[in-house]
Amino acid sequence: MRNFEYNCPTKIIFGKNAESELLYELRKYGDRVLLVYGGQSIKRSGLFESVTMQLREANKAVFELSGVLPNPRLSLVQKGIEIVKKNGVDLILAVGGGSVIDTAKAIAFGAKTDDPVWDYFENDRTPHKAIPVGVVLTFSASGSEASNSCVITNDLTNVKRGVHGDCFIPRFAILNPERTFTLNKYQTACGCTDILAHLFERYFSLDEGCELTSNLLIAVMKTVIKYTPVALARPNDYNARAEIMYAGTIAHNDSLSVGRRADFATHKIEHAVSAYNDLAHGEGLAIIFPAWMKYVYEVKPSMFARLAVELFGIEKGDKLDEQLTYEFISKLEEFYKSIGLKTKLREVGIDANNVKFLAELAVYKSTTIGNFKKLNVNDVMNILKMAL
Amino acid sequence: MRNFEYNCPTKIIFGKNAESELLYELRKYGDRVLLVYGGQSIKRSGLFESVTMQLREANKAVFELSGVLPNPRLSLVQKGIEIVKKNGVDLILAVGGGSVIDTAKAIAFGAKTDDPVWDYFENDRTPHKAIPVGVVLTFSASGSEASNSCVITNDLTNVKRGVHGDCFIPRFAILNPERTFTLNKYQTACGCTDILAHLFERYFSLDEGCELTSNLLIAVMKTVIKYTPVALARPNDYNARAEIMYAGTIAHNDSLSVGRRADFATHKIEHAVSAYNDLAHGEGLAIIFPAWMKYVYEVKPSMFARLAVELFGIEKGDKLDEQLTYEFISKLEEFYKSIGLKTKLREVGIDANNVKFLAELAVYKSTTIGNFKKLNVNDVMNILKMAL
Repeated sequence: MRNFEYNCPTKIIFGKNAESELLYELRKYGDRVLLVYGGQSIKRSGLFESVTMQLREANKAVFELSGVLPNPRLSLVQKGIEIVKKNGVDLILAVGGGSVIDTAKAIAFGAKTDDPVWDYFENDRTPHKAIPVGVVLTFSASGSEASNSCVITNDLTNVKRGVHGDCFIPRFAILNPERTFTLNKYQTACGCTDILAHLFERYFSLDEGCELTSNLLIAVMKTVIKYTPVALARPNDYNARAEIMYAGTIAHNDSLSVGRRADFATHKIEHAVSAYNDLAHGEGLAIIFPAWMKYVYEVKPSMFARLAVELFGIEKGDKLDEQLTYEFISKLEEFYKSIGLKTKLREVGIDANNVKFLAELAVYKSTTIGNFKKLNVNDVMNILKMAL
Repeated sequence: MRNFEYNCPTKIIFGKNAESELLYELRKYGDRVLLVYGGQSIKRSGLFESVTMQLREANKAVFELSGVLPNPRLSLVQKGIEIVKKNGVDLILAVGGGSVIDTAKAIAFGAKTDDPVWDYFENDRTPHKAIPVGVVLTFSASGSEASNSCVITNDLTNVKRGVHGDCFIPRFAILNPERTFTLNKYQTACGCTDILAHLFERYFSLDEGCELTSNLLIAVMKTVIKYTPVALARPNDYNARAEIMYAGTIAHNDSLSVGRRADFATHKIEHAVSAYNDLAHGEGLAIIFPAWMKYVYEVKPSMFARLAVELFGIEKGDKLDEQLTYEFISKLEEFYKSIGLKTKLREVGIDANNVKFLAELAVYKSTTIGNFKKLNVNDVMNILKMAL
């Protein structure tokens, strides 16, 4: 087990009508709030009304930044930074899912520096100062509500990059599973696939002596695999939505990756694909993950074999780990299809001609990506070919 | 799933030589530090030297309070409060296990009030102010290093009681598994039993819709049951000690009880037993838990049956849940015996004459204790009789 430090200070406020606790949290911060959100859905659901009423009751001066899209854009972040710098904002309140939260985070640290904010993404810089961020979550997927990561797409260059920093971990996150009842089947499936990916990426580690972490990760994977179809079949099933919502938070707040290195190569490959193609992130992961697994499993087949047995109840018998791995990957692809996702690049309009370009975009300025197996541009090209 | 708030702000610094990070943490607090510890063991191990060297390097004025014993005493807490009040202490640094940490916590909030500190224990009061507490952990068991609980024994009356308060959750906890190499077999077994008890107490809940939490709890139980015998056989096995140490922390920092009520009746019964008898807390739990299980399992046998299969690999076949429950409890008793613990009250000098007195002490000022099954004095007497 590797040495680690762990500190996730996000206060989680979870449950029915949890957003009514917002007022109490707002009172801890200064008078000027930037409210960041996407489009009309929070207005239709009544959440916008509830949030703005509490902002008024707390006597906040509110600045609004709306129009956040999936694969959130640098240009909107820059607009937000301008508003914050001009008005001396004390708190950035993100009401939405991962794209809204990541926009808020990038504004939060971008407003505390005179450097161009993209420089942090482009050159892997770690920000150390940020305006406080608070979250009212509407979509379980990114785990951004309690994570130190932030992913933005440069809309000039189509490069999608992540930054990590403890300074912009949200101070509080309000999670009401009822707010996810209105997500459609496709959004729900994509969200759950993202959560599963965060778990897989932490599970596939070669660092020894972290069985507790593996056991915990598998416990969460099991829950997500069980409750995704339930939420699809019964969108208003509170407990199913609640299981998924809390799973999404702990899948990415780093409590489940202590003591070992994770492997985020798949996320990086997918970021290239979805930035280029404006594909939903979850669907991109359903396409890339099985291909990544087929390409890297030989490094340690026993880890895949364990998932075959524990996640899908495949009989071990006297099968070799390789056989179990094969069955596991097939079952996983079946699972993705069963929840309505595509699992091949060609189904989303990407063909062999795009492979080299996308592989270069994924590896970008590094020589290799990933830890479980270090992947250079050629490896990534091979994975993309397997995903065609 | 029930609504919940979760916020554990303890910064965990984990790994080989982790105590060398103390200096960095010390610099965040004022000049005056109360150092709380037990006896000679931290001096023999060199830990005391490392801690005091860093306190000197940080230019702290250090006050010492040593002599903390298992089942820590109110009288020592009172002595500590006096020192803190007289000297304006800024940080209380606990170097030791649960007894040392709980002593530090009680001093931390006791020094912020003019009321007698025992009043908080006696009347279930929640403190809201405390001097910051930091921890260098030497014993994995209580989980007190990141918990909001504090248990003290009134040495005048032999009453052992707990207090809960977010104000005294440690700000940082330094966990070096190597520091637990010197624990003897008995201490190790008692510590692991305490950790398991914290997990059982969170698992046995009737609140529906928390499968994620159950899955996570079982994941940790599995780890503890696997690595306890390893640590007993090979005390210097770093990974085994590390698995147990982190399990101990998350077993009691409330990350594994979100969304449901736990049942701490067993801890309360054991507190009566060990306060009266000065028994090691872990051994007391090994005695009380199987009896509690036998008395309450009918409330929901399926929860016990699941543990039979998942923890001890008992074949389900077409057995009834009751049969699996019976096999589970037998296996658990076997496990406790196999790690060298007694499992009957009579083995530790408690007989039928003590039962009524101990039951009254356990229930104390309440009508009932517990949630999975609410237990009145008669119920507790029955459990104690089953444990004779």
